Amino acid sequence: MRNTAEDLAQGILAGDRRALARGITLIESNRADHRAEALRLLDMLAGQGAALRVGLSGTPGVGKSTFIESFGLMLTGQGKKVAVLAVDPSSARSGGSILGDKTRMEQLSRDPNAFIRPSPSQAHLGGVARRTREAILLCEAAGFDLILIETVGVGQSETLVADMVDLFVLLMAPAGGDELQGVKRGIMEMADILLVNKADGDLKMTAMRTVADYAGALRLLRKRPQDPEGFPKAMAVSALEEAGLEKAWDEICALAQWRKEEGFFATRRAEQARHWFEAEVREGLLARLRTDPEIRAKMAGLGDQVAQGRTAPAVAAASMLNLLG
Amino acid sequence: MRNTAEDLAQGILAGDRRALARGITLIESNRADHRAEALRLLDMLAGQGAALRVGLSGTPGVGKSTFIESFGLMLTGQGKKVAVLAVDPSSARSGGSILGDKTRMEQLSRDPNAFIRPSPSQAHLGGVARRTREAILLCEAAGFDLILIETVGVGQSETLVADMVDLFVLLMAPAGGDELQGVKRGIMEMADILLVNKADGDLKMTAMRTVADYAGALRLLRKRPQDPEGFPKAMAVSALEEAGLEKAWDEICALAQWRKEEGFFATRRAEQARHWFEAEVREGLLARLRTDPEIRAKMAGLGDQVAQGRTAPAVAAASMLNLLG
Repeated sequence: MRNTAEDLAQGILAGDRRALARGITLIESNRADHRAEALRLLDMLAGQGAALRVGLSGTPGVGKSTFIESFGLMLTGQGKKVAVLAVDPSSARSGGSILGDKTRMEQLSRDPNAFIRPSPSQAHLGGVARRTREAILLCEAAGFDLILIETVGVGQSETLVADMVDLFVLLMAPAGGDELQGVKRGIMEMADILLVNKADGDLKMTAMRTVADYAGALRLLRKRPQDPEGFPKAMAVSALEEAGLEKAWDEICALAQWRKEEGFFATRRAEQARHWFEAEVREGLLARLRTDPEIRAKMAGLGDQVAQGRTAPAVAAASMLNLLG
Repeated sequence: MRNTAEDLAQGILAGDRRALARGITLIESNRADHRAEALRLLDMLAGQGAALRVGLSGTPGVGKSTFIESFGLMLTGQGKKVAVLAVDPSSARSGGSILGDKTRMEQLSRDPNAFIRPSPSQAHLGGVARRTREAILLCEAAGFDLILIETVGVGQSETLVADMVDLFVLLMAPAGGDELQGVKRGIMEMADILLVNKADGDLKMTAMRTVADYAGALRLLRKRPQDPEGFPKAMAVSALEEAGLEKAWDEICALAQWRKEEGFFATRRAEQARHWFEAEVREGLLARLRTDPEIRAKMAGLGDQVAQGRTAPAVAAASMLNLLG
């Protein structure tokens, strides 16, 4: 199979997982000729599909992999197609997670209706975001019903994921009252649905109390216009015992449906797409300063003059901007 | 007096404070024709003068105004010319400080060898930084020996000021051992000379102990290549009783002299100028997206297409970048 944009588009639209994987690899490449081909591919696939984009975050140890495995298998069991994309800045640094996402979700990764893709190994978070956004478009064109964008519950990756999804699920561990305080307000405010996992065995009662505590905390937050009555919502699940998963999915669908009917869904997607476009233009403009050899040489030359005190920085910048047209 | 760049340059080089004030007003203007004239002025004045650029920070209540007044008057008394530029993001928000810098430093503001300029009232910190950097160049051309860039001890303004000065002085209040912990490590590491003010009256002993505590803390920091033995240094001063000010000035000069001899001084200035130039180019490129009416219209049009899902963001960004040349 050749990897032209046309071939890949055809394969992806037919739901071929290998074509999808190759398409994402093409998109993740930094080579200029690959990039040109990737743009052609994106152009052919724009606006295809009707997947729900859901962000999923949770600190390590909360049982995220087990949850995705159980949740994903439940949905594929209903005939739905589920894609899982990971956004992990730490794996971006090390150039790929050590265990690998397919090992973490062994059964789901072998399911023909599932597609799991580890975090792209880009040097910086912005690069990871860009590639993940484009991978979402490809998964949608491949006909997936749900695209889960998974991230670790630390740092800036939540904000980044929240900017590319329709709704955000936060997975929590059962915890005592004191630990509740530790949840950052910003992350609480980002979550649309809060799932307390491990509601099984010895932890079941603690999990139930935790849900009640979070529900109380969520009621203290000001109601957001994009939420129907009762949202954000806290619920208990057990990924291990596969309990509460259907109810969680029902709530996700109910929220998405309400937002669709009220117009918030389409508005949010439109805004996200516009912001992404604008950010790409800004990033592309700045990238030229670093990559175009002619521009680099001129920047270096003027920079030398400035460093030697022969030209004022603002004056040199003005002539550089003139050169750039 | 007309305000052409030539007239202003002539006045500034002759040390005329009114011309200097007008030049800074010109530089602070956002009008396109003013900006063109400001660039001509900066071009004429580039590389003039030999001032020492010193950053001064300290939290409110530490006696910063009194210190600048006493310190400045001591230097003008020795025949030196002292300029004080303020960088205050809060005054930038409110459009100018309420009391006014000249009221804060009454005697110094009337001194013919001093020049005091409040923080430019720009909408954002980046704008304040840019204007302050250019005001420094003008003050240097006007023959000032010392340019003090004063900032409040909160937020990002210290980092910003540290990037435009030769050395950084941190003014502290006498404090008990516990309060020492409150000084942010980042700010401590930024300081070249740490002055504990109010070493007078009842607070004198506390101030002396505080100096000893800080000196101990500074010894724990790893020695930086740009520091001679004994720096960063902690000292006691009393702006009220004008005690320790000459010694503080001697230490500032000794540090600057050592850095000049070792080459760190020129290297730092060259790097600062180059970074500033590069930042101006980046900012100028991005500004076009917001200000050029033709580019704005094209961005809005492509943004609409993207928002409606008719074009992939990356594809629209690529065509926008093509349009931009």
